[in-house]
Amino acid sequence: MRYKKPFSKMTEETKKLFISYNHVHQLCKEAADKIRKLDIDYIIAIGGGGFIPARILRTFLKEPGKPSKRIFAIILSLYEDANTVSTTVEEVGSKVKRIQWINYGDSGIDLINKKVLIIDEVDDTRTTLHYALNELQGDAQEQARRMGLKDSNTEFFIYVLHNKLKPKKADLPASIMDGKHYIASRDVPDCWIAYPWESNDIAYQQKMAEEQGNDI
Amino acid sequence: MRYKKPFSKMTEETKKLFISYNHVHQLCKEAADKIRKLDIDYIIAIGGGGFIPARILRTFLKEPGKPSKRIFAIILSLYEDANTVSTTVEEVGSKVKRIQWINYGDSGIDLINKKVLIIDEVDDTRTTLHYALNELQGDAQEQARRMGLKDSNTEFFIYVLHNKLKPKKADLPASIMDGKHYIASRDVPDCWIAYPWESNDIAYQQKMAEEQGNDI
Repeated sequence: MRYKKPFSKMTEETKKLFISYNHVHQLCKEAADKIRKLDIDYIIAIGGGGFIPARILRTFLKEPGKPSKRIFAIILSLYEDANTVSTTVEEVGSKVKRIQWINYGDSGIDLINKKVLIIDEVDDTRTTLHYALNELQGDAQEQARRMGLKDSNTEFFIYVLHNKLKPKKADLPASIMDGKHYIASRDVPDCWIAYPWESNDIAYQQKMAEEQGNDI
Repeated sequence: MRYKKPFSKMTEETKKLFISYNHVHQLCKEAADKIRKLDIDYIIAIGGGGFIPARILRTFLKEPGKPSKRIFAIILSLYEDANTVSTTVEEVGSKVKRIQWINYGDSGIDLINKKVLIIDEVDDTRTTLHYALNELQGDAQEQARRMGLKDSNTEFFIYVLHNKLKPKKADLPASIMDGKHYIASRDVPDCWIAYPWESNDIAYQQKMAEEQGNDI
């Protein structure tokens, strides 16, 4: 889905899309209606951008009488700064450093036969999602190999609040981009998305989000 | 600091303290003024409740020209559900299971000589904070031992949005409760705190937070 109103209201000066917290909350709620049907086993939040949508989404995926979906947080070193716009593939090393990862050993979990939802706030150049998926697929294969299985049979899904419609610098496989495994709450042009958690002035953020119609 | 207004407005029916996202944002901003002076090396968010304040706080701790503070996420099994009120120490096993932890090996980080800020949303019975600190102190000691050091010289700090004024079921050491290492944005009576990320109806949440004066 695309936004209807805000882009006409984005001034030349700012070229920013202002998003309120309550709007993020509503996007997660809306997405949960789709995601609930997928019967996810684990949520993997890519930090730090994925932390907030992941935590909110968990609320909407909670089923009465069942424990909350488990959220794991992963952090890759190739995508450190909150300033997504200036991150280019040139700046990003091809070597992926796992700053934080899933403790398969300690937690006793594995990815075999699991449905796993990877969450980030934005699909900008697609580089982070590409690397995250790649690493997790590698883990799943390795776990299958150790158990003497041919295939891990892991099903990965991706959820982002916003997908920027722009040339991507990395791809996601066809198994993800099949219309069922990749969910973006909103497609947006290639603009600066001002998320509320990056704001130094939340009153201004709120005002701008309201003006652009992204307040709820 | 205590809230002045909201408790008089809490009806007998709800006995809930409604908090808006923008209010959480402002609490983090206010706390950052204190925390900035501590020159923290790492943020450790206790999941899922600590994820959101940790991500927001990182924005306010960012210094120009320096990388963002690194956030690690940890999850203990003794505090699974978002429903903090019903969690009693009886329900909680004394065995701590590290569902998610810091990848000291992969990430190449350690706690030696570091200033570490542990973040959670609420200090309710204090059980989670007690165990989290205990485990992290153990890690630091183990790292010191391996390096042949007498002491890890790690300085731990704790930040929570809300501290409930009630008998606690676990203690924090004097080194934390010395007036400098434990920061709670607001002390509150023993009530139900309705955080926005747990809300199924964000418009109602916002309305109630505004009525109670916790909207910004």
